[in-house]
Amino acid sequence: GDLTGLRAILLGADLPVVVDELERMAPAQRTTAFRLLPRASAVRAFQMLAPAVQADLLGELGSRDVSRLIADLDPDDRARTLDGLDHDLARQLLAGLPEDQRAKTQRVLAHEPETIGRWATPELVSVPKDATAGEALRAVQEGIGAAETVYVVPVIDPDRRVVGVVSLRRLLATDPEVPLASIMREPISVHATDDQEIGANVVRDHGALAVPVLDDEERLVGLFTVDDAMRVLQLEEDEDSARTAGTSRLVKPYLSTSVASLVRSRIAWLLILIVAATLTVNVLDYFEASLEQVVTLALFIPLLIGTGGNVGAQAASTMIRAVAVDDVRFVDLPRVLGKELATGVALGAALAIVAYAPARFFTDGQVALVICLSLVVVCALAATAGGLIPLLARRFGVDPAVVSAPFITTFVDATGLVVYFLIAGAVLGL
Amino acid sequence: GDLTGLRAILLGADLPVVVDELERMAPAQRTTAFRLLPRASAVRAFQMLAPAVQADLLGELGSRDVSRLIADLDPDDRARTLDGLDHDLARQLLAGLPEDQRAKTQRVLAHEPETIGRWATPELVSVPKDATAGEALRAVQEGIGAAETVYVVPVIDPDRRVVGVVSLRRLLATDPEVPLASIMREPISVHATDDQEIGANVVRDHGALAVPVLDDEERLVGLFTVDDAMRVLQLEEDEDSARTAGTSRLVKPYLSTSVASLVRSRIAWLLILIVAATLTVNVLDYFEASLEQVVTLALFIPLLIGTGGNVGAQAASTMIRAVAVDDVRFVDLPRVLGKELATGVALGAALAIVAYAPARFFTDGQVALVICLSLVVVCALAATAGGLIPLLARRFGVDPAVVSAPFITTFVDATGLVVYFLIAGAVLGL
Repeated sequence: GDLTGLRAILLGADLPVVVDELERMAPAQRTTAFRLLPRASAVRAFQMLAPAVQADLLGELGSRDVSRLIADLDPDDRARTLDGLDHDLARQLLAGLPEDQRAKTQRVLAHEPETIGRWATPELVSVPKDATAGEALRAVQEGIGAAETVYVVPVIDPDRRVVGVVSLRRLLATDPEVPLASIMREPISVHATDDQEIGANVVRDHGALAVPVLDDEERLVGLFTVDDAMRVLQLEEDEDSARTAGTSRLVKPYLSTSVASLVRSRIAWLLILIVAATLTVNVLDYFEASLEQVVTLALFIPLLIGTGGNVGAQAASTMIRAVAVDDVRFVDLPRVLGKELATGVALGAALAIVAYAPARFFTDGQVALVICLSLVVVCALAATAGGLIPLLARRFGVDPAVVSAPFITTFVDATGLVVYFLIAGAVLGL
Repeated sequence: GDLTGLRAILLGADLPVVVDELERMAPAQRTTAFRLLPRASAVRAFQMLAPAVQADLLGELGSRDVSRLIADLDPDDRARTLDGLDHDLARQLLAGLPEDQRAKTQRVLAHEPETIGRWATPELVSVPKDATAGEALRAVQEGIGAAETVYVVPVIDPDRRVVGVVSLRRLLATDPEVPLASIMREPISVHATDDQEIGANVVRDHGALAVPVLDDEERLVGLFTVDDAMRVLQLEEDEDSARTAGTSRLVKPYLSTSVASLVRSRIAWLLILIVAATLTVNVLDYFEASLEQVVTLALFIPLLIGTGGNVGAQAASTMIRAVAVDDVRFVDLPRVLGKELATGVALGAALAIVAYAPARFFTDGQVALVICLSLVVVCALAATAGGLIPLLARRFGVDPAVVSAPFITTFVDATGLVVYFLIAGAVLGL
């Protein structure tokens, strides 16, 4: 009864909905549901599953189903799937493929993970540079069955070097007698060894449907298509958003991730940060005599360092984004510091005005003055550090997202306390 | 001398590089550089500039240049540009357009900002449902000059309702005599009134090159293309990353943004958060007697609430992402709470073990016990709140990214202090 209902849902639903439902199911149920999908949908759905879920599913399906599924994939999807599998199983599946598909897959697998080479489809139509528009169009029509895309046609010389690119649209709009050389565009290309994110940004910035992928000798390896570029950008966004908060990216959907995996994805940063946080204990221990004299100073510690942390996180987040989209480079450091210092002082002054009333309510006028002055200095420090640290990280080849929010918060906590007690010492004469 | 060099750079460089350089220039220099671009590149570069930079540039160019530039844009790009301009100027520019272009632009402008309607290009090729593949291909060849894309061809009935979609690839691979009805696919479509992010996700999830955009009566309005979908996703990513840190998205590139705009983009959240932070002052004021008795309790306040904030931010960031990609829904709340509670306890226990040694170094055994117990409880609370709050936000129609990190940090600060002093009271008998 249940399965009939399931099948109806699966047959009627949009593919992304089906994929979503599959990722939410328990493994055994998922396998049953997957078996009910028509073959063509099954292949497309499989390609859209998270790699860790793909591996789970292959472990549950029978070996005949697995071989057929693997054979149906495009070479670049197949390579990424095999990558997520146990080494022996992957080798065995590879061996079971037809000769030409095995060779194509092995060429993709030869590239480093997270490079463009891993996403390049070798199944394309290319044409020699001395062809005419009509000849190119015929080549497209002959290759149309096997190619992953035919909308972008690389034009190559006898050494497979890409000398131009012509769109199918252009071919259709051109007189068949016209030589390709006069209608092709300069190729925008990427290298197989490039980082996948760089290649995806090229596709996005040019609004391209596909770009040729070249090897070290500038020869055509394949095409990097816009749908793959969007998947890369989504993966990278997952990773950045995880890093910003100091966790590692989950390889499975949240509900399929075990508590142990959640703990592993978060513990490393917390350990580093708690060790760093003992700095704040040190600072307070150093000023313990002042604290004993004026215990009300302690009341405002969380407010002060919390505000500093927020100001720092805001600046860092703006700067991480500006660095990621290349709006800001290391040479702009002086301008960034100037802007952030001014912004921090202005924010601190505004917040000090707001904080003065509650400060007066809980303490006397002198302590209130300490709190307000400290807010201005801490906000200035926090904004400047938030602007500086991502730029420094980028300069030294570290992902800016890694050293962002939690790092800056801890830095601001420790320096903020020093500032607070130094100002308290000066104003209150401790 | 300078200008010749500039022109050489601009002529030789990739378009995204040119756009990047333009956005980094001072306004006057930018206008000069822009005037040197060949007309076709100028139009494409202009379309890629941030809307606020476009407005600046139009303010500096002469009115004849502006009219020509506006006339060269596609209707959907033109609508978005006009939207960023002073109302009178926009009306004047619209009035200067040829009749058909003005009508197309006005139809785009009739849609709400940030909806798919604003990105739908009306310049497409559609074919009637009783056509053959050959007739459809001829329609494509006739429309190829004016259309923004011809790779996705909507198939419509006499009322302009979309009954299917056929790719140009399919048309080329099919015998010209075959009726369209037998080769078209079920259309995956979006509505003009849909939020732009929803439409962009549909394009990404289906790996589509373009999807038909429908009005309320399911009639064809235009096509939403993959390059626009990528731009939407980039805008939304900018916005989410800003919101997560409690700022608003900058409308201009960072270096062109004034200190006053930076302050405005950040001050609102800081004011809310500093008011919320007076809660922590209240809590500590309430426990002031305990603090006076055992001043060393104050030493560990920043470490404790800092760690709690980090754990909460990790959980929130994971959950915001899971909600955004629809891995987790409100019905999954019990599973989320169970997982996060268990994860929080495990993280807290691990951190307590690490914190025990420094706690013993600075204080006695009983205070160290208070610190370690508090770490476990605070981490459990923080992880649970971090998992809960984004789900609740989504449930009540608030963007989860808005209420995330800073919100959770403030919540954890206040509750963490209560937990700390309650445990201290119980263990130390205060």
